[in-house]
Amino acid sequence: MRTFSTIIASSTPIGRYLISRLSLRRSHAISVKPQASTPPMAAADASNEESLRRTLAEKQSAVDAQGNAVRALKAAKASKPDIDSAIESLNRLKLEKSSVERELQSVVSGSGGGASVNREAFRQTVFNTLERRLFFIPSFKIYRGVAGLYDYGPPGCAVKSNVLAFWRQHFVLEEDMLEVDCPCVTPEAVLKASGHVEKFTDLMVKDEKMGTCYRADHLLKDFGNEKLEKDLSLSAEKAAELRHLLAVLDDLSAEELGAKIKEYGITAPDTKNPLSDPYPFNLMFQTSIGPSGLIPGYMRPETAQGIFVNFKDLYYYNGNKLPFAAAQIGQAFRNEISPRQGLLRVREFTLAEIEHFVDPQDKSHAKFSEVANLEFLMFPREEQMSGKSAKRIPLGEAVSKGIVNNETLGYFIGRVYLFLTCLGIDKERLRFRQHLANEMAHYAADCWDAEIECSYGWIECVGIADRSAYDLHAHTEKSGVALVAQEKFSEPREVEKLVIAPVKKELGLAFKGSQKNVVEALEAMNEKEAMEMKAALESKGEVEFYVCTLGKNVCIKKNMLLISKEKKKEHQRVFTPSVIEPSFGIGRIIYCLYEHSFYTRPSKAGDEQLNVFRFPPLVAPIKCTVFPLVQNQQYEEVAKVISKLLKVAGISHKIDITGTSIGKRYARTDELGVPFAITVDSTSSVTIRERDSKDQIRVSLDEAASVIKAVTDGQTKWEDVWSSYPHHSSESADD
Amino acid sequence: MRTFSTIIASSTPIGRYLISRLSLRRSHAISVKPQASTPPMAAADASNEESLRRTLAEKQSAVDAQGNAVRALKAAKASKPDIDSAIESLNRLKLEKSSVERELQSVVSGSGGGASVNREAFRQTVFNTLERRLFFIPSFKIYRGVAGLYDYGPPGCAVKSNVLAFWRQHFVLEEDMLEVDCPCVTPEAVLKASGHVEKFTDLMVKDEKMGTCYRADHLLKDFGNEKLEKDLSLSAEKAAELRHLLAVLDDLSAEELGAKIKEYGITAPDTKNPLSDPYPFNLMFQTSIGPSGLIPGYMRPETAQGIFVNFKDLYYYNGNKLPFAAAQIGQAFRNEISPRQGLLRVREFTLAEIEHFVDPQDKSHAKFSEVANLEFLMFPREEQMSGKSAKRIPLGEAVSKGIVNNETLGYFIGRVYLFLTCLGIDKERLRFRQHLANEMAHYAADCWDAEIECSYGWIECVGIADRSAYDLHAHTEKSGVALVAQEKFSEPREVEKLVIAPVKKELGLAFKGSQKNVVEALEAMNEKEAMEMKAALESKGEVEFYVCTLGKNVCIKKNMLLISKEKKKEHQRVFTPSVIEPSFGIGRIIYCLYEHSFYTRPSKAGDEQLNVFRFPPLVAPIKCTVFPLVQNQQYEEVAKVISKLLKVAGISHKIDITGTSIGKRYARTDELGVPFAITVDSTSSVTIRERDSKDQIRVSLDEAASVIKAVTDGQTKWEDVWSSYPHHSSESADD
Repeated sequence: MRTFSTIIASSTPIGRYLISRLSLRRSHAISVKPQASTPPMAAADASNEESLRRTLAEKQSAVDAQGNAVRALKAAKASKPDIDSAIESLNRLKLEKSSVERELQSVVSGSGGGASVNREAFRQTVFNTLERRLFFIPSFKIYRGVAGLYDYGPPGCAVKSNVLAFWRQHFVLEEDMLEVDCPCVTPEAVLKASGHVEKFTDLMVKDEKMGTCYRADHLLKDFGNEKLEKDLSLSAEKAAELRHLLAVLDDLSAEELGAKIKEYGITAPDTKNPLSDPYPFNLMFQTSIGPSGLIPGYMRPETAQGIFVNFKDLYYYNGNKLPFAAAQIGQAFRNEISPRQGLLRVREFTLAEIEHFVDPQDKSHAKFSEVANLEFLMFPREEQMSGKSAKRIPLGEAVSKGIVNNETLGYFIGRVYLFLTCLGIDKERLRFRQHLANEMAHYAADCWDAEIECSYGWIECVGIADRSAYDLHAHTEKSGVALVAQEKFSEPREVEKLVIAPVKKELGLAFKGSQKNVVEALEAMNEKEAMEMKAALESKGEVEFYVCTLGKNVCIKKNMLLISKEKKKEHQRVFTPSVIEPSFGIGRIIYCLYEHSFYTRPSKAGDEQLNVFRFPPLVAPIKCTVFPLVQNQQYEEVAKVISKLLKVAGISHKIDITGTSIGKRYARTDELGVPFAITVDSTSSVTIRERDSKDQIRVSLDEAASVIKAVTDGQTKWEDVWSSYPHHSSESADD
Repeated sequence: MRTFSTIIASSTPIGRYLISRLSLRRSHAISVKPQASTPPMAAADASNEESLRRTLAEKQSAVDAQGNAVRALKAAKASKPDIDSAIESLNRLKLEKSSVERELQSVVSGSGGGASVNREAFRQTVFNTLERRLFFIPSFKIYRGVAGLYDYGPPGCAVKSNVLAFWRQHFVLEEDMLEVDCPCVTPEAVLKASGHVEKFTDLMVKDEKMGTCYRADHLLKDFGNEKLEKDLSLSAEKAAELRHLLAVLDDLSAEELGAKIKEYGITAPDTKNPLSDPYPFNLMFQTSIGPSGLIPGYMRPETAQGIFVNFKDLYYYNGNKLPFAAAQIGQAFRNEISPRQGLLRVREFTLAEIEHFVDPQDKSHAKFSEVANLEFLMFPREEQMSGKSAKRIPLGEAVSKGIVNNETLGYFIGRVYLFLTCLGIDKERLRFRQHLANEMAHYAADCWDAEIECSYGWIECVGIADRSAYDLHAHTEKSGVALVAQEKFSEPREVEKLVIAPVKKELGLAFKGSQKNVVEALEAMNEKEAMEMKAALESKGEVEFYVCTLGKNVCIKKNMLLISKEKKKEHQRVFTPSVIEPSFGIGRIIYCLYEHSFYTRPSKAGDEQLNVFRFPPLVAPIKCTVFPLVQNQQYEEVAKVISKLLKVAGISHKIDITGTSIGKRYARTDELGVPFAITVDSTSSVTIRERDSKDQIRVSLDEAASVIKAVTDGQTKWEDVWSSYPHHSSESADD
């Protein structure tokens, strides 16, 4: 069986993309992101490391010099006391060097000593628990599996289904969004328009003899990280150069990556064979639609396009009114070159995406006041550039100060914060990081990622982007169907319109067969160009004009066209809406939730560590377990009655009638994150135990299901239940 | 824009497969299914048609003969009275012939006159409504769409999500099933083991000049249906031959289909070009996993395989106990050659599948008594073969009489019945049809399809099959991982085991290099063969034995092997579980639900027909609309308060504050199938209107949300609410 430990790469996450639209950045011009990919303290660490490398180099020189001195003394047959004293100095220097070496070692192997080791050990414990309890299963594992494909087993599937149900409740229902459900199979035309066919690529190199493929940036990253971590003799300058390379890796062209691979002499990791030059590999799974083999199609790399192509119908459905949002939950596919980071980077995953369409002239949000007072970790562009840390900013202030571009974007940041923390994501390990100017596509107005810290570092789990009118423009252009909105004026408005009227007779005489090209070029002038030409023609009578379809200048004379501005009455404004897009990587959120929910506590006997997932009832895979205290028919009958009541109340639960000790059964259920356990220890009343406090109350048989319903529905808190029912203490229970 | 009318084919549905495992029948040996594909009356119709064709042929002969007689009289210059009388006879015969012709016409164009026309008109009305209200949208329609791909628009998406939530409640939660969620991208090894790579094909022909592809059986079906419908001069014999062809179409080999296409001179429908011979086309969307291009993969054609390959882990998760069921909801993909029948046959669809694993020696079901008293339309094999109709049978009787193979299969039939009727499927248009012996795969123990009647005929929407141990066997064999269960005996049992011990020395001397083949063949004998050989060796001393790997007989002598039976103590029984598989085509169920829920009623003015979907609250896309009676700020405020209360109660709803008349707004909401409307006509109380009765009650403002919650949750019935609140009558309301 393939184990996870072999799949998890220890690479630092660059957090470059996860989802959807962001991933177009794979190939777009994006550049240095010095602080983004590492925790806030990294800047300090880096300068510390640099000074240590310098000190180490100095110590090494001193050791070398003293060594030479000792040898010189010996050669000169100096006195024994002189030689001994020189050797003593040498040993002192060596000790000093070792001490610096140790310090440097601890800095380079992950911010401060054992942290990185601890992180990996923690991750391994969580992983083993998740795999053993079937939260996930490597897909098709009896056939040795496929890298980057995982199944959700029963508890994982229940968690996922709870997260999605809450997402629907929190976003779709709360905001009256229009939910759609489009196919995964997508014809090429759609993904050509969106840019994926051309640009959704990673740079790949091949082992020239074996044909094995690698991601070019991964090889350089691994090389750089290993060098920095293991080669303590690396000069401060070389180390700085490598750190810079790692920071700009995402922005290097194929040629630049290739040159670096050659410069460092990097070869295929498995065989040490030479590598090909890097070349782009499209990450979409390709297929063919219909039997002819002539209609290329792809498995969608994101769900958003299905919404954009339906804009016209959805706008109509919404009564031709803005703003409105459409939403979609569904599978997306990325044929990763070599999947890493376990459950975080996979080849098929569930996305939940929202496209909120607004008038670009009005990005206010009616409900912004409801989130304005929220305060949480934000990491604006400026803080990142100046090497500072994320800081707590009230959302209202972030918008009013212009840190966040507009209210609608701010509203969604707030709603995403509420969504994630309700699921159980730790507030202290959640931050909203703004994209640097050079990370964003040219058309984007502003982008923020919800990043969650886990054992892999800060992981981008939700992207919230104001993509302006880019997507609707692109599909309008490629499909020929206008994806626009109208604002009807209450009374007609007078506007000035540019009119360019070529005089075809004169143009025909002058340009004959080329007349059409000239006319088209003239008509394509924008207002500024046209007004400049008008001025030039009026002053000089003629002007040189470049016609790109002819590839040359022509001479335009005053009698060849009329340029004027006319006043017109307009009854409406037609415009392409802007779109604000929160895009959720559901699998990543769930994985981070697993890590944030996991803890261990000693068994009562103290002889082992027991695993617990502290899932809130909202996401817990099962809400409640029912245990007859001992194997006996009466208790089992009671358990069945309670089970029936729980079913009627719609509460997912399990009965465990195995003869195992109650303590072991509690431990088993804690490890699945089940928040409550009902123990049947009489035929008239039962106990209810809360997972994290291990507190128990006693309730009558009839009440058991309704108490569980109240605390799992969120109508009541456990604390209130705890104060209203008699407590039960069972010394022997938790062993 | 592509409209639906061009996509819908008028073909009679064969109901041959829809889903999952059934579709392997596409290529498996299945044969004649005379009654299955047509409604029960079809047998009578067919014999009626045959006698009409004979009568028509006789009348035609009589007309021809009388025509000749008239011409003869004229030629012989007979007397005018004689000629007139002969012409009168001729005209009478012609009238009789016309009358028979009309009768035949009405029989062949769909059981009784206008029925087929009405069905198509009804379907068109439903379709137009569904498309106009965005229940569905042809996918990628701004790029001219792709045949067989549809989006669910907002109300369709809500209906789907309600159906799936109920499915989870009704099956997964109720039966404690283990739900899993596996990827769509599937490596070839898995689908080779399942048989899909080799057998999941349809036979295709190509237009030899244009390359256009057609399904071979579709061409023959269209040809046959058109001939039978339009060619009234077809002889009864020819007609019977065509009807037989249509009935056995599914069972014809490529060669037989090709021969028939040649015999009837069928050419490409669009161009009349000659056609290629039929050849198999695999219906899976193929792709490639990873960058090397060397790992073939497919988009899964069903979700079941993901469960089978995880059997071992799931069995362990269930405490190594049988029976248990696993379930999966997810997308499946079929690259249809030429999709027809609108939303019923598509290239990507949602399946919900259950694999219930049982001990083949015990297929009883603990909860069978809960469904045993259900009584509904069943269509057993015997009734189909003898041309009878489906009949109402109590489920308990069907199982006890052996009509349904076992209790577990029966239990699921009952649960499927409850599931479908709770959704709103009409009981009278739902039947469970048993597969004929020759429809089933050789390994299947029994199969029943839940068929729903809609405008396309009886459509297979759920398949419920006892597939025995086939799937687990296949994956055990191909993966080398034993997918088996154990029954531990309470005390060891003594069993007799066959022991075949080849004497290798003797065999080596006799067969030299072929020894290995001979030994393998000897060891592969089953008990019967071995005991026969033992007897033969004992009586004759030697015996001829066929070794298939050598392709010849060899002579086995008495001293070459020992055959005996030994008694052994066994502590457990190891066996491959049987699987009972209910498999739901969610899109088909939803489409049939649309048709069964749709009706029209005249507007109050009587000038138009208004459309209504009578969805039960469980599936209605929106549970409630809130209407301020007139546009005024006070009422709108009240509406907002109610909306907030509804949100808190988790009830999906919409506010409609447009100035349209209340009657029009009711009509709009009826057309979406919204069961309740709250109308704000004061600031202290509101009215609630029920969609189908149009009855209205008056409730106080605070009660509105809780009344709606009670009637949509199913806690209360509308009738009870109706009798507990003051009635409201508004003459002007429904206009």
